[in-house]
Amino acid sequence: MNNQPLFAFPRLRDFIHRAFVKLGMPNHDAATVAHLMASADLQGSDGHGIIRLPPYSRRILNKGMNLTPNIRAIEERAATALLDGDNGMGHLVMSKAAEIAAAKAKNCGIAWVGSRYSNHAGPASLYARMALEHNMIGLYFAVGNANHLPPWGGLDMLLSTNPIAVAGKVKAKAQRNEMMPEGWMIDRQGKPLLDPKKADEGFLLPIGGYKGYGLSLIVGLLAGTLNGAAMGKAVIDFNHDEKSTTNTGQAIAMIDPAAFGDIDQFKQRVDTLVGEIRGSEKMPGVDRIWLPGEQSEAKRAKYTEQGIPLPEKLVQTLADLATQLNIEPL
Amino acid sequence: MNNQPLFAFPRLRDFIHRAFVKLGMPNHDAATVAHLMASADLQGSDGHGIIRLPPYSRRILNKGMNLTPNIRAIEERAATALLDGDNGMGHLVMSKAAEIAAAKAKNCGIAWVGSRYSNHAGPASLYARMALEHNMIGLYFAVGNANHLPPWGGLDMLLSTNPIAVAGKVKAKAQRNEMMPEGWMIDRQGKPLLDPKKADEGFLLPIGGYKGYGLSLIVGLLAGTLNGAAMGKAVIDFNHDEKSTTNTGQAIAMIDPAAFGDIDQFKQRVDTLVGEIRGSEKMPGVDRIWLPGEQSEAKRAKYTEQGIPLPEKLVQTLADLATQLNIEPL
Repeated sequence: MNNQPLFAFPRLRDFIHRAFVKLGMPNHDAATVAHLMASADLQGSDGHGIIRLPPYSRRILNKGMNLTPNIRAIEERAATALLDGDNGMGHLVMSKAAEIAAAKAKNCGIAWVGSRYSNHAGPASLYARMALEHNMIGLYFAVGNANHLPPWGGLDMLLSTNPIAVAGKVKAKAQRNEMMPEGWMIDRQGKPLLDPKKADEGFLLPIGGYKGYGLSLIVGLLAGTLNGAAMGKAVIDFNHDEKSTTNTGQAIAMIDPAAFGDIDQFKQRVDTLVGEIRGSEKMPGVDRIWLPGEQSEAKRAKYTEQGIPLPEKLVQTLADLATQLNIEPL
Repeated sequence: MNNQPLFAFPRLRDFIHRAFVKLGMPNHDAATVAHLMASADLQGSDGHGIIRLPPYSRRILNKGMNLTPNIRAIEERAATALLDGDNGMGHLVMSKAAEIAAAKAKNCGIAWVGSRYSNHAGPASLYARMALEHNMIGLYFAVGNANHLPPWGGLDMLLSTNPIAVAGKVKAKAQRNEMMPEGWMIDRQGKPLLDPKKADEGFLLPIGGYKGYGLSLIVGLLAGTLNGAAMGKAVIDFNHDEKSTTNTGQAIAMIDPAAFGDIDQFKQRVDTLVGEIRGSEKMPGVDRIWLPGEQSEAKRAKYTEQGIPLPEKLVQTLADLATQLNIEPL
């Protein structure tokens, strides 16, 4: 990490913006997507940021995504909406979903906005955090864009890891020539699979065993099946198919704490709880107890200050993309 | 199990009913609680059924629960409500919460009803299932009535296992003189704790490691902190304190699938997904792939037919309770 070149947030954002405009995306939409993708890198969600620009570009060039979608509510109640994303970029669909959810939650106390015919939108936290601008609690659910999990006891990969399972660390183990611990993967006989280079012969395990399978299924039902989006066998593995419409399903819920009493008192109660957790006696060797989201917050501060590190190989891939699109490089 | 005496559902229900009436609970409320508690046993949730009658009775005799609560909405919006349970039985609070949630979700598409000053309500699925009567999806969240989990890296038990973590199986291992597998518990040095008889010296681990810690915290925030109910240090361990007001927090959400399109089409999509999961190629040694809730459903059918098995020791405890309360025995 220490030897990786560093790039200021605006540099990443503006490069992404240029690429999408050159690919034919309207300027305002390109700005929205570029801001969100660079924000992913800024918070350390580096698997969901600028690294996705080359595959997104290929999908656009393959006519696999709609550059001028008509994103609209096709079902609506006081506290709910179902958006048809018209195969536009997920970032645009979920930005609109968050906006609608905030307005509805302000009126009704809670709102839930689902999507169909959306696409990959990057890290969940970008959208859950949009609730904070409205003094609200945000929850985000998505059907993953590739199935890695079989049902408990099964061998067919029908479930995505969704946002609640171990994932993405297997490749890193393989690159470092390390074995995986038990509990990450099993082979087709149900025995522990420890060699990450044999990952294709096995399956990721859900967190918490059968409980994780249940959670993954529930998230898929709420974000996919309810919305008429792809789930189970209908899910397109977007790593291996850059053309077919993914019909990605997502959902964002917002809860207005003011609907449950004084909001300042609620924030004080949260602060008290955070203080109790931070102040817990620590296990030997632990120097700090983290709250969810704190590490991302710390990265945002650090990377804003010093710049965002990108691996050399990715920088080269982005340079190639710039040449291909004939745009100013990063 | 095979040698345990069997009791028909109405026999359990009516015994519980008699006990609560004798303890001073209004007849209609006693009937509601008795039905729900016996329903827990009927679906195999035997840790949440009639086994709780003796501790509930002790709490009532200790004036630790309010027999004639004024359960009322103290905050309300179109799609939300916050109930003050007035320290009544959780079964009554959550039954009312479910009723309100169903009516609001019918109008708004989704509803969320939280509680404060509630008490233990039995298994989550009883309340989530109430949504089915209204053709809705139900979600239930609760702050557990005892803290077993430290935050990740910590040693203070500030989090309950909530409904998403391994729990309750440690005692069974101890009774059978078996060791626990790695991953269930750790000691105060963070090392695996395998002897269930030393459970008091260690901590339960959340499912999925730090992700489980995050989930437990989020559920506690939504079901407890948001509602002004106990969370963190404020949680009363109801196994060791049968007098103090627990200020238990719960929440039930209902989603009306009809707000997202044709409900029959939704049910067909669920059936398709269920078919895909059931039809998955099976791991060697697995003869059936289960969907969440199917095992409870199977138990409901079996126990309705043959009766509900109760351990001899519990039957004796209930006989003692009948003598103590001077009511007709089970």
